[in-house]
Amino acid sequence: MPRTRSVPPAPAAAVGPVRLGPGARAALRPAAAGIDAGFWHARREVNARTSIPQGPGLLESAGNLHNLRLAAGTAEGEFQGAYPFVDTDVYKWLEAAAWQLAQEADEELEAHVDRITRLVAAAQQPDGYLNTWFQLVKGGERYQDLRWGHELYCAGHLIQAAVAHHRATGRTELLDVAVRFADHIDSVFGPAGSGKPLDGIDGHPEIETALAELYRETGERRYLDLAAYFVDRHGHGLLGGDAYCQDRVPLREATNVEGHAVRQLYLLAAAADLATEAGDDELRTAAERLWQAMTTTKTHVTGGLGAHHDKEDFGDPYELPNERAYCETCAAIASVQWSWRMALLTGEARYSDLIERTLYNGFLAGVSLDGERWLYVNPLQVRDGHTDPGGDQSARRTRWFRCACCPPNVMRLLASLEHYLASTDDGGLQIHQYVTGRYRGDGITVGCATEYPWNGTIALTVEETPDEGPWTLSLRIPQWCRDVRVRCGEESYDGPVTDGWLRLERTWAVGDRVVLELGLEPRLTAADPRVDAVRGCVAIERGPLVYCLEQADHPGGGLDDIVVDTTGPLGVKHRPDLLGGVTTVVAAGRRQRIRDAGWWPYTPYLPQGTSPADPTPGSPDSEPVELTAIPYYAWANREDGSMRVWLPTS
Amino acid sequence: MPRTRSVPPAPAAAVGPVRLGPGARAALRPAAAGIDAGFWHARREVNARTSIPQGPGLLESAGNLHNLRLAAGTAEGEFQGAYPFVDTDVYKWLEAAAWQLAQEADEELEAHVDRITRLVAAAQQPDGYLNTWFQLVKGGERYQDLRWGHELYCAGHLIQAAVAHHRATGRTELLDVAVRFADHIDSVFGPAGSGKPLDGIDGHPEIETALAELYRETGERRYLDLAAYFVDRHGHGLLGGDAYCQDRVPLREATNVEGHAVRQLYLLAAAADLATEAGDDELRTAAERLWQAMTTTKTHVTGGLGAHHDKEDFGDPYELPNERAYCETCAAIASVQWSWRMALLTGEARYSDLIERTLYNGFLAGVSLDGERWLYVNPLQVRDGHTDPGGDQSARRTRWFRCACCPPNVMRLLASLEHYLASTDDGGLQIHQYVTGRYRGDGITVGCATEYPWNGTIALTVEETPDEGPWTLSLRIPQWCRDVRVRCGEESYDGPVTDGWLRLERTWAVGDRVVLELGLEPRLTAADPRVDAVRGCVAIERGPLVYCLEQADHPGGGLDDIVVDTTGPLGVKHRPDLLGGVTTVVAAGRRQRIRDAGWWPYTPYLPQGTSPADPTPGSPDSEPVELTAIPYYAWANREDGSMRVWLPTS
Repeated sequence: MPRTRSVPPAPAAAVGPVRLGPGARAALRPAAAGIDAGFWHARREVNARTSIPQGPGLLESAGNLHNLRLAAGTAEGEFQGAYPFVDTDVYKWLEAAAWQLAQEADEELEAHVDRITRLVAAAQQPDGYLNTWFQLVKGGERYQDLRWGHELYCAGHLIQAAVAHHRATGRTELLDVAVRFADHIDSVFGPAGSGKPLDGIDGHPEIETALAELYRETGERRYLDLAAYFVDRHGHGLLGGDAYCQDRVPLREATNVEGHAVRQLYLLAAAADLATEAGDDELRTAAERLWQAMTTTKTHVTGGLGAHHDKEDFGDPYELPNERAYCETCAAIASVQWSWRMALLTGEARYSDLIERTLYNGFLAGVSLDGERWLYVNPLQVRDGHTDPGGDQSARRTRWFRCACCPPNVMRLLASLEHYLASTDDGGLQIHQYVTGRYRGDGITVGCATEYPWNGTIALTVEETPDEGPWTLSLRIPQWCRDVRVRCGEESYDGPVTDGWLRLERTWAVGDRVVLELGLEPRLTAADPRVDAVRGCVAIERGPLVYCLEQADHPGGGLDDIVVDTTGPLGVKHRPDLLGGVTTVVAAGRRQRIRDAGWWPYTPYLPQGTSPADPTPGSPDSEPVELTAIPYYAWANREDGSMRVWLPTS
Repeated sequence: MPRTRSVPPAPAAAVGPVRLGPGARAALRPAAAGIDAGFWHARREVNARTSIPQGPGLLESAGNLHNLRLAAGTAEGEFQGAYPFVDTDVYKWLEAAAWQLAQEADEELEAHVDRITRLVAAAQQPDGYLNTWFQLVKGGERYQDLRWGHELYCAGHLIQAAVAHHRATGRTELLDVAVRFADHIDSVFGPAGSGKPLDGIDGHPEIETALAELYRETGERRYLDLAAYFVDRHGHGLLGGDAYCQDRVPLREATNVEGHAVRQLYLLAAAADLATEAGDDELRTAAERLWQAMTTTKTHVTGGLGAHHDKEDFGDPYELPNERAYCETCAAIASVQWSWRMALLTGEARYSDLIERTLYNGFLAGVSLDGERWLYVNPLQVRDGHTDPGGDQSARRTRWFRCACCPPNVMRLLASLEHYLASTDDGGLQIHQYVTGRYRGDGITVGCATEYPWNGTIALTVEETPDEGPWTLSLRIPQWCRDVRVRCGEESYDGPVTDGWLRLERTWAVGDRVVLELGLEPRLTAADPRVDAVRGCVAIERGPLVYCLEQADHPGGGLDDIVVDTTGPLGVKHRPDLLGGVTTVVAAGRRQRIRDAGWWPYTPYLPQGTSPADPTPGSPDSEPVELTAIPYYAWANREDGSMRVWLPTS
């Protein structure tokens, strides 16, 4: 009796990000998955065939590699780039390439990685320090500007890349560089009285998660302790007490997320790491509290985070503007990283609910369908008559940015995406996200075939199972889903969904099939009334996808005068020709005639039910128009024009 | 038969800003007024007794005067301040003091003005150049950074101060400095081929209106020509083509206001000056077009301008956020300056409608009731739980700013306010704004007694009139007013209001009385449906005043759950004890129970009429609350707390 049947190899679990260390106190352990076809496979193919391969050329033309050569003394010229953190573009690309190499051999890519790794190693100073901006522009003056210098932030991304490179390839060249840098940092930073020369933190968190990962990779506890030190020194005024630098209040006391969104989220991911690896329950409680506050009061419907352009700030509770939503692509990525750590730590499904929403919407909008152009900010509305200033904060996709943090960040998440999909525990396997491919826990492999998110049918097959005893296959039922059906073999199952999980406990045999049907009826969504920006509006959603209107689908006018008819039916139309193949939602709407108020747009309030339209006799106050909504992630892939997610209802 | 009877002296018309030059092509000529009592008199008393007298001390402690001494070589030390335009704080204060001296002698104030004028003169370089930042910090390197250097902007404010000083006192010390600087600039800047070394503009307009005023004061046509040159060189990419610097498109081609709001408005004020003084009809047409576009699409209900904190930008059409409204106090002032020029140029009442709205709301909110604290930005909402970052862009009043442009700008407008109230033409006198005091045209003086804006009764008395023939007393009927009554002597008059003017043409005698009654019923106001930020909301207004709710008047909770009952009556209650004496508007409202949606605030849309409140049996979905609205200008004068202008209706 064979224990397993032959199945395609799934990547080893140890190859992805967030591999738990010994003694980790997590409810769940990360499991790997393979993505073989379907929605995410297509996006990852573009990432693998276009985005990642174009990286070295872009890093060359933007000067990042040139800076490393300058620091190594093997080239001459001026430092290129306007920011002290330009090295991180290189490191994030290396991390993306490493995760990609974990999936398939690629000699050309490997050669680039080796070449760039050598560049990085050559630029490192003898004592382990490495930052081309400070080495070249600041005359080697280190740690004098922790508020803005980004030296530890850069170190963090180098360490993350090195961990990925080591996990993916088993090679140590980059890890050696990272360990030298980490040891250098450990020799410099520490609390007063520790004998270390500097009691300080970096204005931009990132070193903290990186050190936790380096601990996991090397087993060296010092790195985790250093991460804990950095996390806890935030919020005590070392950098002047700004929320921007995560320095206004300690995480343990904070009541809501605040300040620069990406900085806050990277710091919270580290808090989750410390709760997991060091058993710090107070940090766990703080992270749970802040996640809840964030999702309840500071998250856009797309999962996008960050309401202010100014200082890239979270903004106030319920301050969630549409056209000025910042929703930096990097913040979506950081949110996924934090939420995944919370999902493992707690075992709660809601964290993966937010991951799903973010991946399909706020994150994926950051990269064009062809993988060549990017959005740094992800607004929920572009108005008729929008005058785009261009640049990093443009509402038009851009080939590369002056501050190019987002593109390689997208690349690394897409290249490691299969590690955010499933988990395992002593009782079985948990599937967090549905893809065509396979999930692999300890001695368990479950295959999956689905056209999700276009189709709600998810067909699961047990491909490998331990010989004896029951185990539980846990399926996350998305928070948005109101209609769930499941069949195990021929029998339908209507067991309860508990805290977001449908748990199927039984003695499984290879070949057992489970078919999950998630109802994908399109729906209209309203916001908490305190979200002033969308009062009187609805969003169209279907499954995990948030939809939007684009001007390209509505010829003959803009979008600012469009109203959706909430009483009309919502139709669904799959359009294989459109935007790489999308299911559109068709709704009834109208173009509303707007009364000309002369030069002043504020007029006496007319009681409810009174139309604001022009009452000119004989003129209709609106004309019907069929609205075609496309998935938000696919916007800004055609000609420039207006866009909106939230649609007025009157 | 005496032509006039004895009346208190009114200031000579020539003493205020915007004195038309010879050959000016304006529909109206500025007339002076005296403000003797009432609303604006009280504000001006605070300005004269507190704000202006505190100026020298603040300019000393902030280092502005120290910088002048450094430049003059009479002190030692470091340059103080973070910006290249800190000199303008001094100049704007000098201008305010000069207008104040025009109203009443004040030896102490005059001594300060003389002393600071000597400092300015001593800091000036032999060839006329003067900018302490460039002299001290930049090693005297001039005009190398026109995009950000603000050298001509500073020159402009110096010239404005000098013109005011000369008009007010007849003295020439400061005017001599200004003329030397202007001649220097005229020797440096000019079009290619003119023989001038530099074809350039300043990133921050201001020099243009200043040169027009200097032309008016000196009769030297060169200055007007130079102003015309600067206006027209904007928009041709000399500074890189940014809207921020008013360099993306020439005014003559622009279709809407854009970029940095204050910069745009100062430039447009200069366009109006050139249309007036040089008869440039194309600039007039452009200014009219842009004013209309601005008021229709980019103006907050308070008259506030500028939707973005980021780059202090106007934003897109109909993008008028509440909590993130920028509405810089300086932009309100610039708007008044521009609109007044347009009012004189065209004779149209709507420009003074906007002036009234701006003065009573967006402008006046910029200074505290005690005249000691300031707002740089003027939001229309402060949320419950707002975490104020402090600093220049705080929603809390601040004693002074790092960038202290607004406080002395408020001082100079308040000190010269009587010059924005009335005009004259060959046919008579036009009253644009109603104050207790007197208006004086050519041989005409009209006295006025009113408790406006608290009371709509405006009692006018002819105090001086030419011997013979009829003339027209034109009264502006505010755009918001739906109920106008007027009595001439004992007879009521129901003549038409034409384009905002009620014109009373007759042969007047000294002692003739006109009583204008403007209905002040409080009202609810709605916005154009394209103003997404206020969909489903109303504002409370009464007369020219926009009202707001403050948390201080609504104990027992915040403001984010409050809804106004639009069917209830609006009550009026004068509260002499409150905020220096205000009339409050009392409305019916309720606190709405908000359904707890768990961790995700976006929920299935419930069809219209369905309450989003918690349907828990037995629990009321809202509790009634009496809403007390105070005038917006008086907000932020008590303890910190939330505030909102736009109130949800459901």
